[in-house]
Amino acid sequence: MGPDPVLLETISTGDELVRGRSIDTNAPFIAERAARIGVLRFRHTCVGDDPAALAVAFREAAGRADVVIVTGGLGPTEDDCTRRAAADALGAELKFDEAVFAAMGERFRSRGIAMPARNRVQAFFPAGSEILANAPGTAAGFRIEIGGASLFFLSGVPREMEVMFAEHVFPALKKMRGAGYTGAYRAVSTFGESEATVDEILEEIQRRENLSIGLTALLGRIRVTVQTTGPGAADRADAAEAEIRGLLEPFVLEAGTLERSVAALLAKRNLTLATAESCTGGLVGSLLTGVPGISAHYLGGVVSYANSAKVSLLGVPEAMLAEHGAVSGPVARTMAEGVRRALGADLGVSVTGVAGPGGGTAKKPVGTVHFAVAGPDGVRTLYRKLPGDREFVRRFSANIALDLVRRSLRKP
Amino acid sequence: MGPDPVLLETISTGDELVRGRSIDTNAPFIAERAARIGVLRFRHTCVGDDPAALAVAFREAAGRADVVIVTGGLGPTEDDCTRRAAADALGAELKFDEAVFAAMGERFRSRGIAMPARNRVQAFFPAGSEILANAPGTAAGFRIEIGGASLFFLSGVPREMEVMFAEHVFPALKKMRGAGYTGAYRAVSTFGESEATVDEILEEIQRRENLSIGLTALLGRIRVTVQTTGPGAADRADAAEAEIRGLLEPFVLEAGTLERSVAALLAKRNLTLATAESCTGGLVGSLLTGVPGISAHYLGGVVSYANSAKVSLLGVPEAMLAEHGAVSGPVARTMAEGVRRALGADLGVSVTGVAGPGGGTAKKPVGTVHFAVAGPDGVRTLYRKLPGDREFVRRFSANIALDLVRRSLRKP
Repeated sequence: MGPDPVLLETISTGDELVRGRSIDTNAPFIAERAARIGVLRFRHTCVGDDPAALAVAFREAAGRADVVIVTGGLGPTEDDCTRRAAADALGAELKFDEAVFAAMGERFRSRGIAMPARNRVQAFFPAGSEILANAPGTAAGFRIEIGGASLFFLSGVPREMEVMFAEHVFPALKKMRGAGYTGAYRAVSTFGESEATVDEILEEIQRRENLSIGLTALLGRIRVTVQTTGPGAADRADAAEAEIRGLLEPFVLEAGTLERSVAALLAKRNLTLATAESCTGGLVGSLLTGVPGISAHYLGGVVSYANSAKVSLLGVPEAMLAEHGAVSGPVARTMAEGVRRALGADLGVSVTGVAGPGGGTAKKPVGTVHFAVAGPDGVRTLYRKLPGDREFVRRFSANIALDLVRRSLRKP
Repeated sequence: MGPDPVLLETISTGDELVRGRSIDTNAPFIAERAARIGVLRFRHTCVGDDPAALAVAFREAAGRADVVIVTGGLGPTEDDCTRRAAADALGAELKFDEAVFAAMGERFRSRGIAMPARNRVQAFFPAGSEILANAPGTAAGFRIEIGGASLFFLSGVPREMEVMFAEHVFPALKKMRGAGYTGAYRAVSTFGESEATVDEILEEIQRRENLSIGLTALLGRIRVTVQTTGPGAADRADAAEAEIRGLLEPFVLEAGTLERSVAALLAKRNLTLATAESCTGGLVGSLLTGVPGISAHYLGGVVSYANSAKVSLLGVPEAMLAEHGAVSGPVARTMAEGVRRALGADLGVSVTGVAGPGGGTAKKPVGTVHFAVAGPDGVRTLYRKLPGDREFVRRFSANIALDLVRRSLRKP
């Protein structure tokens, strides 16, 4: 077995976070980056701008963890009390650092701005700290040791935090993890089976020793992660990944997400795609165009939200809309064929459904969605009755449409 | 002054959260909703799927808070150990609940699916629990009392958590907050000014006693919140809100978000809109169609990702593309006019830009975006050079396009 794992905790500070006025992206970023090198966070805490509560939280975390990464509260305003709380937790005084203060002044001068007097507080650090430079920002961070644990204090501004993490924390984590570290991490994503079914299929593999399997479900996509440590970790992880891929075929995504999988398959087969969207209103297109480089294979599409747009831009006959309704198999089919023709694409995919909350009927309740994919060999349609509210129906529908394209591209 | 404040803590559970594989939206949602009725969260903790660590976290939180809201770990898989940990924290046994089990069976039957055997664990709850129904999902939650604190256990699936929170937790929080409570909460959203500028404009108002002003910035939208308690809170909050609206005009949004503001203004003026999107790839349409009831005013649009789509569907001349390039004012103008005409809409809006990471040139670097809005009175164009990566440029561009429509609709 390898050395003991490094125990990592994070603490996010700030009233705006703890009171729910803004969302913390720093702590998940840190956890994800650390996990990549096998350092698994086991606890995260968020505390407001209260020096006493912060000092207690710092001491508690130092008692549990090897490394504590604190973000936020280094600004110049009165709320920013992380320095004070860190000094209290350490039982040290705050000391003024001339060099940091001079660098701050230089920074303001170079931008042609006078440094506000209140920024001076940002040059104070707990006595004995190691100062951590903040290249993109004003607020330097610091590192202190409490009872054998290393506490890193970083800026709460995500862009600054990311640079400080990369420069000061990541190398330290790698070093602590030790040369003898042997952990391995793999991930497999699937679409088309429920979480419970995937869990059942992987039941035996989840029971094995020294193999940690995790499942995360989001809008039909199930992400399976594999973690293991000790001698032979990489081989064990590779074997487990291959076994999981085999067990979950044909649901395994080619490239992590549905849109990236579609992009990869379009590139591989050198084909082009166009989209015709009704209830998803552009969501399929926006997912696809989120993938860099997709412009070589995604031509564009039509958002045919009103029936008039289905008629004028996609050639859906008025009579068909009257007979079957806009949410129907024949209309989905004609939309897919129409957009394929209009954009001169190899494949056309369509979605038309009742997302709710209004618009549902006894025959076509909210959640009724029809899909079609049209290609040189004809059209394939799909009907689904989805649970959930408007946003869920729309997002799940976009994923199902992408999966329909993916499956048609996987066929030889 | 009113009664003592209710002390709220949240705990999110799950290896996928603590190890950074997915982002927790539940805890911020709860904090924000509770803050609206004056219940301010003072601490949040995230712990992995470890029954012993969870039981300790539940007991610690019960020792600090009046209300603890726990999300996640109620699923049927082996990872899901919240029930076990809650029973341990309470010092109680897990007891099988016939009624919950019967309801689960009924739910599966109605969808024509056999209930997997392992779902049976979801009918076990700590003895003495109050069961909390989960209308949209399988996993019921529960409420227990430890040392005077109420602990609510909710599903970790956001859609289910939101319904359970509204049904079971929110009324309880209101009750605990007490009849003598006098807090008030208001929010104003703006678009078009930087956070620093808004902060400066509101500098004086932020210094006032018994008025807590918060700012949150997301993709150009700045949300300003006002909180106050004590006698006259509602009047004081109303006055502050009116003052803030006055100070921030004309940047104040009509309805919280840009897409809802556009929808409200379209409805008010009884006009229709069509979209022509290039780099945003359908994002503007998907934001608009996320607003219930928009179908009366948003007709649809064209995602003209490839140049051929700009020519065939929007009537952009090949010569114009050759002379000015796809990312240019003239093309943006022609796209807006073209989509307005193609869909027979009152207004057409367009976006064309370089989202990156590829495609940038010295003259048109990544982040160059052109916009236009066409209406009966002519066309207005807008050029912006945006910072940030592909996703940021795309999302910010979609907001700017919506704001362009909003401003043209606000004109008398």
